[in-house]
Amino acid sequence: MQLFYAPDILQNKFVLNEEESKHCIQVLRHRQDDEINLTDGKGGLYTARITDANVRKCMYTIVDAQPNYHKPAYQLLIAVAPTKNVARFEWFLEKATEIGATDIVPLITQRTERQNLRTDRLEKILVSAMKQCITAYLPTLHPATTFKQLMGNTQLLQQYPMRYLPHLNDDAQNPSRHLKNAYTPGNNAMLLIGPEGDFTPDEVKTALDKQFIPITLGKSRLRTETAAIVCCHAIRFMNEQ
Amino acid sequence: MQLFYAPDILQNKFVLNEEESKHCIQVLRHRQDDEINLTDGKGGLYTARITDANVRKCMYTIVDAQPNYHKPAYQLLIAVAPTKNVARFEWFLEKATEIGATDIVPLITQRTERQNLRTDRLEKILVSAMKQCITAYLPTLHPATTFKQLMGNTQLLQQYPMRYLPHLNDDAQNPSRHLKNAYTPGNNAMLLIGPEGDFTPDEVKTALDKQFIPITLGKSRLRTETAAIVCCHAIRFMNEQ
Repeated sequence: MQLFYAPDILQNKFVLNEEESKHCIQVLRHRQDDEINLTDGKGGLYTARITDANVRKCMYTIVDAQPNYHKPAYQLLIAVAPTKNVARFEWFLEKATEIGATDIVPLITQRTERQNLRTDRLEKILVSAMKQCITAYLPTLHPATTFKQLMGNTQLLQQYPMRYLPHLNDDAQNPSRHLKNAYTPGNNAMLLIGPEGDFTPDEVKTALDKQFIPITLGKSRLRTETAAIVCCHAIRFMNEQ
Repeated sequence: MQLFYAPDILQNKFVLNEEESKHCIQVLRHRQDDEINLTDGKGGLYTARITDANVRKCMYTIVDAQPNYHKPAYQLLIAVAPTKNVARFEWFLEKATEIGATDIVPLITQRTERQNLRTDRLEKILVSAMKQCITAYLPTLHPATTFKQLMGNTQLLQQYPMRYLPHLNDDAQNPSRHLKNAYTPGNNAMLLIGPEGDFTPDEVKTALDKQFIPITLGKSRLRTETAAIVCCHAIRFMNEQ
């Protein structure tokens, strides 16, 4: 199935944007009266019929609508320190979309090496991944947020009662639990993934004060983007039947 | 910890190859009598002392040796159809090493789009990932193997009593089980990941005849390299305490 992204459906505007129109009409050669599949990125999956095969403004009418298509059983917010090599962060965005993160926060910690990101480019990666894996939920890409801002956002923290901090814990007296023993399926989860140099002791203390649970992801050391994907998949895996 | 790859230790040759020597002496500026960490890629983690800081042939003596360092509780063979975009397959190799596959087979199926791979380049990616995540086990990269060859390799199949075939199963009467309900921790596992166009019906039938269990990885459609990593992590996750 080929999926087109049509967020304007939510404003009852039944027209594809220029990029999607071009792909639909010029590349895939769809014609008037062809049926196509659309998503609003908010859970809606639609069947539409093309009424005007305009290469810049393809018009359509809705034939069928499925709300909450494959609605995830949980909200997963993953806050990740952008990697020095931006390709690794972009790769993470694609995989997190396929695997099912609902909210992504570029996290600026004391040791984060990259602070500037091209949001437009990152949004395109998310949309492309959503269409590729035929899901109707586009993850929300939050603006780059400092560790301090996130810890101060009480409203956001309250949306995620289960909050986890994977980090290198050298305290042999108090070893961290594995994520699999700390998360209960069906609950919203927030996870913080630090930069290559890990979180600072101050950041760890602040997070623990905010009821983040220190966890381990296993013995082997994982790159930042790998740890992020491992967390996304662990939550998905535990929620599957 | 910085790790150097020294497979020749197994032949009692206490010298780094040219690439590792250059990295150790020229880049990291190690000198005679410095202590360094080595792995043979077979589970051995060594502490060594440099006896000759030669930029091409760095000589050393073993100070300490730990066999079976973080030995995995299982063997995981993952056979994956190489992707058209080789960067995606190379990314899979890096992540599979971090997450803990022990054997990787480039699988040539009827619909596999890429058949030629640069083994030397792929080996370098595995070694680099092993060093990066400080593991002492280098996955074995098998030569590209046709689906038919794999199915005919009875000796190899017997090493993996738990064999799985994730594929698009349209048979509503016999839905596939999820991997989490089909695998028992502690057992060696073999998984086959097909190309974008999936396995052919003939290939599916052949695999089922060879006692591969048809499984699903969840509702959303995953790219080839994503499905492969999801499988590697699912097996790792189920084996963790």
